[in-house]
Amino acid sequence: MKIITFGEIMLRLQPFGFERFVQAREYEATFGGGEANVAVSLANFGKDASFVTGLPDNDIGKACLQELHRYGVSTEFVVQKSGRMGIYYCEKGASQRPSKVIYDRAGSVAAGLQVGDIDWKAVFADAEWFHFTGITPALSDNMAEVTLEACKAAKEMGVRISCDLNYRKKLWSKEKAGKVMGQLVPFVDLLIANEADADDVFGIKAAKSDVTKGEIDLEGYRSVAKQLTERFGCNMVAITLRESVSASRNLWSGLLYDGESMFVSKKYDMQIVDRVGGGDSFGAGLIYGLTEGYTPKDALEFAVAASCLKHSVEGDFNMVTVGEVQALAGGDGSGRVQR
Amino acid sequence: MKIITFGEIMLRLQPFGFERFVQAREYEATFGGGEANVAVSLANFGKDASFVTGLPDNDIGKACLQELHRYGVSTEFVVQKSGRMGIYYCEKGASQRPSKVIYDRAGSVAAGLQVGDIDWKAVFADAEWFHFTGITPALSDNMAEVTLEACKAAKEMGVRISCDLNYRKKLWSKEKAGKVMGQLVPFVDLLIANEADADDVFGIKAAKSDVTKGEIDLEGYRSVAKQLTERFGCNMVAITLRESVSASRNLWSGLLYDGESMFVSKKYDMQIVDRVGGGDSFGAGLIYGLTEGYTPKDALEFAVAASCLKHSVEGDFNMVTVGEVQALAGGDGSGRVQR
Amino acid sequence: MKIITFGEIMLRLQPFGFERFVQAREYEATFGGGEANVAVSLANFGKDASFVTGLPDNDIGKACLQELHRYGVSTEFVVQKSGRMGIYYCEKGASQRPSKVIYDRAGSVAAGLQVGDIDWKAVFADAEWFHFTGITPALSDNMAEVTLEACKAAKEMGVRISCDLNYRKKLWSKEKAGKVMGQLVPFVDLLIANEADADDVFGIKAAKSDVTKGEIDLEGYRSVAKQLTERFGCNMVAITLRESVSASRNLWSGLLYDGESMFVSKKYDMQIVDRVGGGDSFGAGLIYGLTEGYTPKDALEFAVAASCLKHSVEGDFNMVTVGEVQALAGGDGSGRVQR
Amino acid sequence: MKIITFGEIMLRLQPFGFERFVQAREYEATFGGGEANVAVSLANFGKDASFVTGLPDNDIGKACLQELHRYGVSTEFVVQKSGRMGIYYCEKGASQRPSKVIYDRAGSVAAGLQVGDIDWKAVFADAEWFHFTGITPALSDNMAEVTLEACKAAKEMGVRISCDLNYRKKLWSKEKAGKVMGQLVPFVDLLIANEADADDVFGIKAAKSDVTKGEIDLEGYRSVAKQLTERFGCNMVAITLRESVSASRNLWSGLLYDGESMFVSKKYDMQIVDRVGGGDSFGAGLIYGLTEGYTPKDALEFAVAASCLKHSVEGDFNMVTVGEVQALAGGDGSGRVQR
Amino acid sequence: MKIITFGEIMLRLQPFGFERFVQAREYEATFGGGEANVAVSLANFGKDASFVTGLPDNDIGKACLQELHRYGVSTEFVVQKSGRMGIYYCEKGASQRPSKVIYDRAGSVAAGLQVGDIDWKAVFADAEWFHFTGITPALSDNMAEVTLEACKAAKEMGVRISCDLNYRKKLWSKEKAGKVMGQLVPFVDLLIANEADADDVFGIKAAKSDVTKGEIDLEGYRSVAKQLTERFGCNMVAITLRESVSASRNLWSGLLYDGESMFVSKKYDMQIVDRVGGGDSFGAGLIYGLTEGYTPKDALEFAVAASCLKHSVEGDFNMVTVGEVQALAGGDGSGRVQR
Amino acid sequence: MKIITFGEIMLRLQPFGFERFVQAREYEATFGGGEANVAVSLANFGKDASFVTGLPDNDIGKACLQELHRYGVSTEFVVQKSGRMGIYYCEKGASQRPSKVIYDRAGSVAAGLQVGDIDWKAVFADAEWFHFTGITPALSDNMAEVTLEACKAAKEMGVRISCDLNYRKKLWSKEKAGKVMGQLVPFVDLLIANEADADDVFGIKAAKSDVTKGEIDLEGYRSVAKQLTERFGCNMVAITLRESVSASRNLWSGLLYDGESMFVSKKYDMQIVDRVGGGDSFGAGLIYGLTEGYTPKDALEFAVAASCLKHSVEGDFNMVTVGEVQALAGGDGSGRVQR
Repeated sequence: MKIITFGEIMLRLQPFGFERFVQAREYEATFGGGEANVAVSLANFGKDASFVTGLPDNDIGKACLQELHRYGVSTEFVVQKSGRMGIYYCEKGASQRPSKVIYDRAGSVAAGLQVGDIDWKAVFADAEWFHFTGITPALSDNMAEVTLEACKAAKEMGVRISCDLNYRKKLWSKEKAGKVMGQLVPFVDLLIANEADADDVFGIKAAKSDVTKGEIDLEGYRSVAKQLTERFGCNMVAITLRESVSASRNLWSGLLYDGESMFVSKKYDMQIVDRVGGGDSFGAGLIYGLTEGYTPKDALEFAVAASCLKHSVEGDFNMVTVGEVQALAGGDGSGRVQR
Repeated sequence: MKIITFGEIMLRLQPFGFERFVQAREYEATFGGGEANVAVSLANFGKDASFVTGLPDNDIGKACLQELHRYGVSTEFVVQKSGRMGIYYCEKGASQRPSKVIYDRAGSVAAGLQVGDIDWKAVFADAEWFHFTGITPALSDNMAEVTLEACKAAKEMGVRISCDLNYRKKLWSKEKAGKVMGQLVPFVDLLIANEADADDVFGIKAAKSDVTKGEIDLEGYRSVAKQLTERFGCNMVAITLRESVSASRNLWSGLLYDGESMFVSKKYDMQIVDRVGGGDSFGAGLIYGLTEGYTPKDALEFAVAASCLKHSVEGDFNMVTVGEVQALAGGDGSGRVQR
Repeated sequence: MKIITFGEIMLRLQPFGFERFVQAREYEATFGGGEANVAVSLANFGKDASFVTGLPDNDIGKACLQELHRYGVSTEFVVQKSGRMGIYYCEKGASQRPSKVIYDRAGSVAAGLQVGDIDWKAVFADAEWFHFTGITPALSDNMAEVTLEACKAAKEMGVRISCDLNYRKKLWSKEKAGKVMGQLVPFVDLLIANEADADDVFGIKAAKSDVTKGEIDLEGYRSVAKQLTERFGCNMVAITLRESVSASRNLWSGLLYDGESMFVSKKYDMQIVDRVGGGDSFGAGLIYGLTEGYTPKDALEFAVAASCLKHSVEGDFNMVTVGEVQALAGGDGSGRVQR
Repeated sequence: MKIITFGEIMLRLQPFGFERFVQAREYEATFGGGEANVAVSLANFGKDASFVTGLPDNDIGKACLQELHRYGVSTEFVVQKSGRMGIYYCEKGASQRPSKVIYDRAGSVAAGLQVGDIDWKAVFADAEWFHFTGITPALSDNMAEVTLEACKAAKEMGVRISCDLNYRKKLWSKEKAGKVMGQLVPFVDLLIANEADADDVFGIKAAKSDVTKGEIDLEGYRSVAKQLTERFGCNMVAITLRESVSASRNLWSGLLYDGESMFVSKKYDMQIVDRVGGGDSFGAGLIYGLTEGYTPKDALEFAVAASCLKHSVEGDFNMVTVGEVQALAGGDGSGRVQR
Repeated sequence: MKIITFGEIMLRLQPFGFERFVQAREYEATFGGGEANVAVSLANFGKDASFVTGLPDNDIGKACLQELHRYGVSTEFVVQKSGRMGIYYCEKGASQRPSKVIYDRAGSVAAGLQVGDIDWKAVFADAEWFHFTGITPALSDNMAEVTLEACKAAKEMGVRISCDLNYRKKLWSKEKAGKVMGQLVPFVDLLIANEADADDVFGIKAAKSDVTKGEIDLEGYRSVAKQLTERFGCNMVAITLRESVSASRNLWSGLLYDGESMFVSKKYDMQIVDRVGGGDSFGAGLIYGLTEGYTPKDALEFAVAASCLKHSVEGDFNMVTVGEVQALAGGDGSGRVQR
Repeated sequence: MKIITFGEIMLRLQPFGFERFVQAREYEATFGGGEANVAVSLANFGKDASFVTGLPDNDIGKACLQELHRYGVSTEFVVQKSGRMGIYYCEKGASQRPSKVIYDRAGSVAAGLQVGDIDWKAVFADAEWFHFTGITPALSDNMAEVTLEACKAAKEMGVRISCDLNYRKKLWSKEKAGKVMGQLVPFVDLLIANEADADDVFGIKAAKSDVTKGEIDLEGYRSVAKQLTERFGCNMVAITLRESVSASRNLWSGLLYDGESMFVSKKYDMQIVDRVGGGDSFGAGLIYGLTEGYTPKDALEFAVAASCLKHSVEGDFNMVTVGEVQALAGGDGSGRVQR
C-alpha cells in the first residue's frame, strides 16, 4: 500500500565545499523539501511512496520529476502548471560557523495550489499513510486549506496521518502557526517535533532545556509529549534531540511517546557531512518502522539510526538502505570498511 | 563624466559545458542582464559607469554587488530591499541545437521598484549618458513608469540617452511593447535594435530579410533605420546583424545610420563560446566610441569588434579591453598567440 | 503499447574534456549501450519503452537502473544477478584525432544471460515493437541464442522487429557475424545499417563509396538496400550516412528504402559534441516515426533530425524532445537562442 | 576615517582538497598576504580600508586588484610596475600531517618598492590607523626602509599603529629580524604576536610553554607582554594562543595586555577548514574593536571570535560580518542552521 | 638493492567527496593494490622498488604503468597481455556510515598469470626483499602457484620475505585461505596482520578483543604473535591495531614481536582523509626500517607513523617522505603549518 | 642511443576552459617548455630521451620531475638547486580572441645555470642527437654560455644537433638574438624555424608572405632556407607554416630543405584544442623520423602529422604514439571512432 507525502520540493543551490555565498561561482543543484525527502527515503527503503506537489511545466520542473523517478517515487498526482520552482540557497557551515539557508520560494507553483487542484480521493485510494509537515500549510493560506482538505480526506478513508511540526519563522508567525496547526494536528496519529517546535507553535515548553547548549531534559520532553497527546489526541509523539556541539559535530537521539511509555533511543556522536533533511529522515524511518510492524522502541531506534546515517550523506535525500540502517541500529557504528 | 545604465541584473544559472537542463547537477552561477552588461563592459573600457537597479538585501544580492564592484562599476544608487533576485537559467546550445533560456524573474526586487524609489536628479548629476533597454519597462507597469521618470530627468539634465529595443516576448505582447516603447523612444538619441526588434515592437519591417536564414538585405535595414529616426526623432539608429549558421557559428556585423549616411561594418565569422550579452557588448562599444569622440564609422567598427570578442568570452559580461578591441577592429583577427 | 529493446548497457567511463586516457585522473561515469540508448530516446519522445538486459545486483547495477528510471524507461524485465557490469572507456577525439573506445565487457551479467532467463511471452505482452542490434548476439553464444529466442517470440506475438546491424569487429569475426545475423535478420521488419555494416556482415557492398573520404554514392546504397530486402525479406532498410570531415565535424544524412522507393533525407553539417549513440538515436527516431504513423519520408527526416541533435548532446542518450526534433526537421537549424 | 595596511599580497596556489603538491594537477588560485587579509577583513566589517602595496601591471596583478575591489578595499595607493607577483603554494594538512607552505616571492614588485615610491602623506591623510606585519620589512632591505618611512609619517600625522610580529624564518634570521623590528616597534601602539614570535624576534620568552604540545602558561605570557610594553613603549600587546591538537583541530584563544591588566579570552575548540590567515583575522578584529570604541576585553573577545570563524572559511580572507562575529562572541557556538 | 613486490594493481574508481555510488556521475580514477602500494611507498622513501604484476596492453594499462613510473617504481618485470584491468569501486564513508568497496577484478590479466610467465631468477637478482600479501594467492589457483614459485625462488636466492595476511572474504573461504597460506607462510620472515587476519586465516585468536568496539587486549596479541612464529617459523610478526571510533576517526597503533620481545607503538588519534592502503603503508614502513637497519622498536614506530600519515593522504599510495615520517615518529603530531 | 634536449621547463598555469585571466579562480597546473616538450614527445614515440635543465629542490620541482618520469623521460642530468621554478600563465583564446601568455620565468633555477654545472661529456656519452631552442640561450647570459658549451661538446662527440630558432621578444632583442644565435647555429645540423623566426633573428626575409593573413609564398621560404644553410652551414632547414584563420582554426603544414630539394608537406585544416607546443611537436617528429632513418620527405610528413595531432591534445606535451601519427600521415584524417 502506498505512502503519500504532500508539500513543496525546491531546487537546492549550494556553494561547493565550505565556500560562503559571497565566494560561490558554482552551485550544486539538487532538489529537496521536507515531504519529498520523506518520500525518497521511504522509496529507498523499498516502500511504495508517492509525492504530491505542484511543479512548473518547464525543464527545471522536469528535472525535478526525473530526480524523483530516479529513486522510484511516484509522481502521478503532481500538478504541473506554468510558473516558477521554489529555491533555497544553502551554505554549509563548519565548526563554530553555522549553516545558512536563504529561501526564495514565494510565488512557486506549489505555494499556489488551490483547493480542488488535487483529487484526494484518488490519491488516497490504496494508501496506508499520509505525511505532511508544518511547512506545507505555512506556504500560503490556500495551501493551509489544501492541507486541511487532505487531512479530512485521509481520515475519512482510514489513512493514518503523520505530521512533523517543523516551525519556520520566515514563513509565518508563531501565532498563525499555532492557529493553523491547531486545526490540523487533531487529524494526526503520529506527531513529530524537534526540541523547539512544540514551544514555537503551541507554547508547550520543554522545561529547562537550552537548545543552544544541547543539554537534554528527558522529563521535560515527556511532559511536552504528554501535553501534545492530550491536547490533540495524537496516538504518538516523537521528538528528535539534537545537541549541537558545533556545525561539524552533533549528538543525535530521539524519543517516542505512545501515550503510555516514553522510549529513548541510543545517542550518536556524529561528524556532519550534511545535516539538512536530518529530521525528515527520522520521520521516514519512523513511518517505515510503524508500517512494517516494528515495536515502538524498534521503530524509534530504526528512525534514529536512519537519520544518523543521513547526516553522513550529501543532499536532502537519505540515500541509505534498510540493511544499512539495521546494521547501525543493531550496534555497529565503527565505520569499518565494507568490502 | 558618468555613464548611467538602468535595469535588472539576474543570477544566471548555467549547466556545465554542453549539458542540458535535465542533465545538470551543478550550475555555473554568474550575474547578468542587459544594462548591467553594458555597465561592466564600459567599466572594462575604463569608463566611469554606474548601474542603477534594485537588489535583495541578502547574501545573493551582496554577491551580485561585489561582482559589480570587482569590475569597477559604481552601485551607489542601487536600492536594496527585502525580496528576491531574478534568475535566468541558460542552457548552452551547439551545432543545430539552440541555446535555451528559462526566465524566473517575476517578483524580483528590481521589478518592484516604484516611482520615487530612485533620486534621478542625484543619479544624473555629473552624468553624460543614460542607457536602458526595452526589457526594463517590460518588467512591470511600475518599472515602465520609473523608466519614463528616468528619461524625463535625463533629458532635462542634458544627458544623452540610448536604448536597445530588445523585445522579449515572454515579458509583454507586441502591442504593449509598442505602446510603452512609443512613449520612451522619443527621448532617445541613439536607438539600437537587432534585425527583428523594430518589426516586433513597432511593426517596422526590414523587407525581405529572413533571420532564420541569415540573409541580409542592407537596403531594407536602411529603410528601417530611416523610419525609426523619422518617427521618433532619434539622432542615430544602430542595428546588429546576426547570421546564424548554427548555434556554434554565427556571422556578425552591424550598421549605423546617423540620419544621413548608413555605415556598414566589417563582418566576422565567429566560433561561439557564449553568445549571451552579444548585443549588449555592441551597445557598450557604441557608447564608448561616441563618448570618446570617435567618428560614427569608427564607433561602429569598435562596437562590432567589441561584440565579436564578447562571443569568445564566457558569461554575460564582455571581459575585454579597449586595446584588444582596437587590435581586432584594426585588422588582426588571426588569433595568433600573444606572448 | 510498449516498445521493447534488448541488449547490454555498460558503464561508460570518459576522461574529462579532450583529455587522453593516459592523462585522465577522473572519469565521467554515465551509462550507455545501443539498445538502452534507443529505449531512453523513445522514452524521451514519450513512448512506453522497456529495456531488457542483465545487470549485477550491486550498487553499480542499481545506479544504472536508477538512471533508466530517471528517464522513464521500464526495467521490469531486467534480470539481476551476482557478477560484473560491462564497461567501455571512451576518449573524445578532436579534429584529426579520432575518438577511441576500449571495451571491457567480457564476463558481464548481460553477456551471461541464458535461454530461459527471460520470459519473452511476458515481455512482449502489450508490446508493438522489438528492437535489438548486432551487438547483442555478438556478446556470447548464449546471447545469440537468447536473441533468436526473442525474435521467435516476438514474431509469434505479432510484434514488429527492428535490428541495427552495428558490426563490432572486437566482438566477433565477419564470418561469425554473417552466420548468426543471417539467422536473425529474416525475422526483422526494419533493418538499419551504417555505410559499412552490410558489407562487413553480409558482404553486400555499396559500390564505389569510400567511407574514409565521406563521398556518398546513392545508387550504391539503393542497391545495398535492395539486396538486403531481397535476401532477408525485410520490409524496410534504413542506412545512416556519415561523412567524416574530422572528429569535430561530420555531415550527416540517411536514407530509407521501403522495397519500392528510396527516400533520401536532408543533410546536416554538424559540429560534434558527442557522436557516440548517433546511430542509436537514428534508430529510435525511425521507430518513433513508424509507430506514430508517419510516412516513410517523414519518419526518415524525423530520425535524421533526431540523430543530428544527438551529436550536440553529451552522453550516449539522446536527451531531446519530439518538439525539438520536429523544429529541426521542419527547417530551423539556425541555432538561435530559444528564450 | 581610513585604516591603512601595507605589505605584500601574493597569488595563493593550493591543490584541491587534501591533495599533496606532488599529486596536484589543478590549483585553486586566490590571493592573500598578512596585511591584505587585515584590510579585507576590516572592509567586510564595514570599515574604510585601504591596502598599500606594489603589483605587476599585467593581468595577474589586475585580477588581484579586482579581487580587492570586490570586497571594497581601496587600492588607490597601490603602485603598479612591470614585474612579477609573489606566489605562495599552500598544501592543506590534515590530522597528523601539517599544512605546508612554499614561498616563491623573491623579486616581486612589492619586494622591490623603494623609499619615495609611496606618498605616505597622501596615504595617511584622513587615516586613523596603520597596520603592518613583520613580514613587510623582511621582504628586502628597501622594504624595511619603506616601512620605517611609513611608521614615521604615520606617527607624525597622529595615526595609531599596529604591528603583528609574524616572524618568518625563510625571509630573515632572528638576528636581522630583531634588529630591524627593534627600530620599528617603538612606533607601534598595538603589538600583536603569536606564542613564539616574541622569542624568535626579541628573545623574550614565554617561560615553560611548549608550543608543539599546546599547553598554555598564562603567567608566562603576561611576563612576555609586560617586557614588550616596557622595552618598546607599546600601549597594548595582544597574543594569540593556538593549541594544535592536530592539523584538523586546534584550540584557539587570545589575550590582551594594556599595560595594566591582562584580559584572557574564551577558548574555542575548532575543526579547521583553513587556518591560513587566522592570525590576521585576529588583528583585524582587534583593530575593529579598538577603532569602534570597544573596551579592551570586548575588543579581544571580538577578535578571538572573528579569528575563530576565519578557521571555518576557505582562503586567506575572513569572509564574515560583524553580526556573525558578535553572535559567536555573544555565546552561540552551537553551529545550528540559520534559516 | 631492490625490493620486489608482487600482486595485482587495480583501477580505483571513487565517487567525488562523500557521494554514494548511486549519486556518482564522476569517478576519481587512481590506481592501487596492496603490493603496489607498498612499492610506491618504498619508492617515496627513496628505495629501489620493483613491482611485478600483469597488466593489459591497452591505454588503461599504460596509464597505470605511467603512474608507477611517476613515483619511480620499476616495472621492468611487468607482464603485459591482452585482457582487462581489475577494478575496485570505492565509496568513502563518514561518521557512522562505513566506506564501501565493490570489487570487479575477476578475469584480470594479473589474475591470469601462470607459472612460468615471470622469470623469478631475473626478478630477484640484486634484490634484498620480497613482499606479497594474502590477496595475491587468493586471486586464482594459478596465482597461488605463481606465488609459491616466487617464494621458493626468493628463499633460494637469500631474499628476505614479508607477507601481509590481508584476508579478503570475497576472494576465498577461510578454509581455502588457511590451506594456501599455510603453504606460503613458512617461507616468510616477517608476517604482518591486522587484528582479525590470524583468526580468519589460521583460526588463531586474539582472545577477548572485539574489533567492532576497538578495545585492545595486548596480551591476546602477544599470544597470537607467538603462535604464528611458532607454527610457521617466522622471525617477526607485526600486527596493526585499528580502533574504529567511526569512519571519520580511528585510533591507530601497532606492535612487533621478534620471537622474544613484543614492542608496542605510540597510538595516534586520526581524523581520516582516506584509510584505504593504511595497512600497506605500515608494511612499507616496516620494510623500510628493517632494510635500513633500524632497531625493531624504531622500525615499528616508523611504520606506525608512516601509516598514520597515510590516513591523511588521498588515494591508495602513501605520498610521504622519510623526513615527514621521522618528524611524526619523533614526536610532533601537532600539525602546525610548515612554512 | 639517447636524444638529449636542454632548456627550461616551467609550471604552466591555465584558467579552466575559455576563462580569461581576470575570471580565473582555478588554474590547470601542467608543465611545459620547448625542449622538455620535444623530450616527452620523443619518449612517447619510444625513444630514449633525456632532458637536461635546472629545477628547484622543493615539492614543485619534484612534481615536475615526476611528470617527466611518468612519460619515461630520463632526468639523470637535471641539476636541483634551491630557488624558484619558472612559470607561464596561459589563457586559451577562441575565434577572434587570441591566446595570451604571461611569462614569470626570471630568476628561475634553470636561468641561473652556470658553465660547469653540467657535465656535458657524461650527458653526451651514448647520445646520438642534441636539441635546443632559441629560448635557452635567451634566458640569461650564463645560459647562452652553457648552451655554447653544450654545442661544442656535442659537436666534438659526434652528436647531431638540432635547433628551433623560436624567437621570443620578451626575452631579448632581435639584435642580441642575432648575435648569440649567430654563434650557436654554425654547430647545428638541422635548423627549425617558423615563418617569422629567420627574419626576427637573422633578418632573413620570406618575401611577400604576411603571417597575419596566412598566405604562404613557397618560393620565399625556399630562399630563406637556402640563405640559412648557406650562411650557417646547416644540413637541413625545416619551416613550419601556420595559417591562422582564427584562434580556433589553423591550417598547418611544413617544409624541409636539405640543401638541394625542398619538400612540402600535406596541409591540415585543424580545429584547435591546444596549440601551445605545436612547433615543438614538429621538431620532435622530425628528429624521430631522421633518427629512425626516414627519408626527408617521410620525416617531414611524420613531423607535420605529429604536430597536427598535437593541436588536438591538451597541454604542452604531444601525447600521441608513432602508430597514431603514421595513421594520419598515411591518409586517414577523417576522425572516425577507433573501437
